[in-house]
Formats: sequence, C-alpha cells, structure tokens
Amino acid sequence: MNDLLRYFQRELPAINDFLDAEADLLNGLVRDVAKHIIGSGGKRIRPMLTLLFARSLGYGKDDYLAIACALELLHSATLLHDDFLDDAELRRGKVASHLKFGRTETILAGDALLALANEMGARYGNARLSWLLARGIMETAVGEIEEIEFSKKPSLDRERYMRIIIGKTARLIECACRCGAALAGATPEQEDAAGEYGLNLGIAFQLVDDALDYASPTSETGKPEGGDLREGKVTLPLILLMEDGDEAGRESLLEGLQDGSLTASQCEAVLEQVREGRYSEKTRDEASAYVEKAKACLDGFPPGEELTVLKQAADFVLTRTK
Amino acid sequence: MNDLLRYFQRELPAINDFLDAEADLLNGLVRDVAKHIIGSGGKRIRPMLTLLFARSLGYGKDDYLAIACALELLHSATLLHDDFLDDAELRRGKVASHLKFGRTETILAGDALLALANEMGARYGNARLSWLLARGIMETAVGEIEEIEFSKKPSLDRERYMRIIIGKTARLIECACRCGAALAGATPEQEDAAGEYGLNLGIAFQLVDDALDYASPTSETGKPEGGDLREGKVTLPLILLMEDGDEAGRESLLEGLQDGSLTASQCEAVLEQVREGRYSEKTRDEASAYVEKAKACLDGFPPGEELTVLKQAADFVLTRTK
Repeated sequence: MNDLLRYFQRELPAINDFLDAEADLLNGLVRDVAKHIIGSGGKRIRPMLTLLFARSLGYGKDDYLAIACALELLHSATLLHDDFLDDAELRRGKVASHLKFGRTETILAGDALLALANEMGARYGNARLSWLLARGIMETAVGEIEEIEFSKKPSLDRERYMRIIIGKTARLIECACRCGAALAGATPEQEDAAGEYGLNLGIAFQLVDDALDYASPTSETGKPEGGDLREGKVTLPLILLMEDGDEAGRESLLEGLQDGSLTASQCEAVLEQVREGRYSEKTRDEASAYVEKAKACLDGFPPGEELTVLKQAADFVLTRTK
Repeated sequence: MNDLLRYFQRELPAINDFLDAEADLLNGLVRDVAKHIIGSGGKRIRPMLTLLFARSLGYGKDDYLAIACALELLHSATLLHDDFLDDAELRRGKVASHLKFGRTETILAGDALLALANEMGARYGNARLSWLLARGIMETAVGEIEEIEFSKKPSLDRERYMRIIIGKTARLIECACRCGAALAGATPEQEDAAGEYGLNLGIAFQLVDDALDYASPTSETGKPEGGDLREGKVTLPLILLMEDGDEAGRESLLEGLQDGSLTASQCEAVLEQVREGRYSEKTRDEASAYVEKAKACLDGFPPGEELTVLKQAADFVLTRTK
C-alpha cells in the first residue's frame, strides 16, 4: 500500500486547497456549511480516481482539479441532504450540518454544492464530460430516492439492495473514473473499462461500509455501531442473517424495522446474531469478489505508477477498518 | 396580443406533454410531487422563450423540447425547495407540495427535477448548451441563497434588491433565451442579444410580480395580498414607500420585519400607505423601462412570427394581472 499512500499524500493537498478555495467563494449563508462538510475528513476517493484515470491514460495537463473536485462536491451535496432527511446526528464523528447550521442553510448549501459541481464540470467546454456528470448526478439522485423509499418499506430483497447501493454509491464512483478517462480523451472502450472498474469498486466500497456498520466500534467510523439496524435500514449483513433464519423471525424483524418498534434489547440480540454468524465478514467476502472484478478491468491500461495505485486502491477498499 | 396567444396555444401542448412524460419516468416516491408542481399551472414562459429564440434564428428541427423543458423543470425545482424553506402554504393557489406530500418527498423531488433538467440539457452533446445550463443553475442557486439571507436581515437597499431579483428570476430567464439561441448555433453577438432581452424581461417580470403582491386580490394570483410584507420580505413597493417616508418610520418598520413583530393592524396600515402612494403602480413603471430595454435587444433579429411574439411577450409581462 506504500505507493497508494505516497500518491495520496502527494496529491491531496492540491485537491483540498482547490475545494477550500471554491467553498470560500460561496455566499456567507452557506459557506460555513460547505466548509464544514468539505473539512470533515472525507477520503477524497472520487477526485483521486478521476486524477488516476486521467494520468494513467497519459493526461499531462494540470487543469484536472475542477472536474476531479466536482465529484467530491456532488458527494458532499448528497450527504447534506441525506443527513437532514435522515435526521442524522453525526457525520464522520462530527455533529451533522443541519444541527449545527440549521435546515435552511443545509438544504441551500446542498443545492449550491450541486450547482457548483455541475458548473465546475462544464468549465472544460467538453460535451462528453458534461454528459457524464449530468448522468452521474441523475443516477445519484435516483439512488438516494430509492434508498429512502426502501427504508420506508424495507424488504429482504437482495436484488433491490444491490440496485440501491449501485445507485447511491457506485454510479458516482463510476462517473469519477469515466470523467478521468474522458478528460484524457479516452476511446469508448477505455472509458467503459474505467467505468466498470469504478462501478465494481463502488459496490465493494458500499458493501464494506455496510459490513463496518455492524463491526466497527464508534470511535473508528464516527458512527454508532449497528446504526443502520437502529435506523431501520436493511443492508447485506441483515439480509444474509435473514436468509439463514426462519420465516417467523424474518417477518417479526421486518415489522419491527418498518414501524420502528425494535427495542434496544431486540437490537442487541440481532447484533449478537450478526456477530455469531459472522455476517459482517461474509459481506466483506462478497465485496472481495467485486474488488477482483474491478482489478480485472485494469488489464488494458498501460503499466505505471497510476496502474499500481489503482490496484492498491481496490485492495484498500477491502482492508479498511473505518 | 393575438399572435402571442395563438403561438402559446399552438406550442404549449407539446411542452406540457413532454414535461408530463418525463415526470412519469421518475421514481414513485417523488413522481406525484413532480406532477403536482408541473401541473399547477405555470405560464411556461421559460420553455417558450427557448423555442422562440431557437426558431427566430432559423432552427427548424423538432428536438427543442428537452432543453426548453429543462428550463421549466429547473424553475419547478427551485419552487419546491423555496416553498419548503419558506414554510409557504400555497403555490399558485394550491396547497404547497411539502404540506401535501411531506418534506422528504419534496426535497428529493427538487433534487430529482434539478438533476433531470441538467441531464435533459446534456442530451444534445452541445458543450455550449451544457455550460449555459450549468451557469444558469449556479446563478439561480446563488440568487435563492441571497434572497433568504436578505430576508433574515432585511434592509431598504435597492441595489441589493435588484441583485436578488436578477439572481433568483432574471438569470434563469436569460438562460432560457441564450439556450434557444445556442441551440440554433447563434453567433456570440446574437446569443448576447437574446440573453440581454431575457435578463431585462426577467427583471420586469419580477418587478411586476412584486407589484402584484401588493395590488392583486388573492383569487387572481393564488397568493394572499401583501403576503411579502407579512413574510417580512422587502420588495420594491416597500422600498419606494420607505424612500418617501421619514427615518423613524423606516427604522421601526425594518425592525418589525426583521423580528416578525408586525401586528395585523400594522400590516394593514402599511398596505394602505402603499395603495395611497400608488407604489405598486410606480413599481410597474420601473418594470416598463426594463420592458423597453428588452424590446430594444430584438433589433437585430429577423422579422417573422417569432419576433412579433417576443415583442408581445415583453408587453404582456407589464399588463398581466396575475
């Protein structure tokens, strides 16, 4: 992982500076919200992927920051609206924006970051980039909506779960990879390979996120353990548990999730079952298959530092603990 | 106004059908919200302006609907978020979406319509169109934010009022006009002239809107008379009244607006002063100057049905009573 760390350490300052400078230009009503969400320690995976694919395909210009950072701002915008609609209290271990700054400031900051991201992508006068970004925004909006719809009427439908994690997470990561390729003037085949890598990486990333929710102590993730369960969110560890359980247990759990009637001790019992059945680990195993698929998409890319880092990034998704 | 009415009657069905068809494709959670706001009787000024400028510059293809309707959807998206943040009860005489469908559905429908509009504009693979749309979205977001910031700390600053109505209304109308020109492959000069027309028309449109708020009975506008005053919004009729009044009156009114302490009888007294001083009519007079500026921008456009309708549209902005 040394190349990955070195690459990130070298490139992150420019990305963070660019994000800060753009946020500084926003109106005072939303500027602090934007700086709070940007400064709350995201991993910057999306802008790094844009940069990595652009460079791996030979892009040498240093004007990549606007499109790379656009992907991060889109992600930030969705977090702001999601946390408000979820009544979330924490984000990355810090108090959620709507509680710190107010609902008006948070909704408008989400709108402003979405608009800014889109405008940053349009600065290149590159119709392909604008199209990719527009589609990524649309798919992410659809994913958010499907996730909230699902949480209102949860089921143990794996196919639906997969569609939701693709929509809410993987499509934007795919978009980040495609944008890097498009910036470098990639062939359609190269852009598709970059997109496939991103899609599979994004699925693995979200699977690991959902596994960590059941496995990681609060101090590492900044979120309470079993938070998804407590919020009534159905994710893969729970689906796997239910697939192994009996019909009666499934129905009573689903009912409890749907009407929010699970008691603290019922939640504890489910968390214990997930631990005993190693369903968090089994979710990681599924993620592992997607990581392998992602790496296979890199076969046609030229060897070099970026290729090494892209492979290590795929592995890192699996091994991260927060 | 006969040409204007005939043109609108002929072209509106295709625009409304397209908007309906796009809304039908949205996820069930937000579809009804989208159909409610789209079906609540907007004037479709933005898509008509796109169409009029495209055709006036010789555009003959019938693929104009996606970009024209994108402008209407952007406008709808901002209405959804604005009404929620304003705690508005009515929109065009109907119950506001967040009260009818809920906050989650309304915020997400706004996000989805914004994303869809952007994606519709990107379908052409025309980098200029994507850029114009991205800038229009950004300017509108900034305008919304400035308006809400202004309402939290109102002042009688005309310059600031003008900047806000340009941001929240006129820029998107400018954008609609520019998009029509860009679709037709206009020269930069032609696009600028179309944009100037739209900017001035948009300013006039908002001035008349603000005048109507003080002058029009609820049954015509679908909004309560003097609603802006009751909500603590400072618009031109009030600025004109204050400019003619004394320092003490100004300060006490501003204070009442800011802390929401105006009583019903104080509001009535202000409404009466606005009526007596004809400040609503004086606001219309200012609008009239912008209408003239807008029409002057049309000088270089070729004669024809579209030019006639664009001129009548400018006049109509002044004469409308709702």
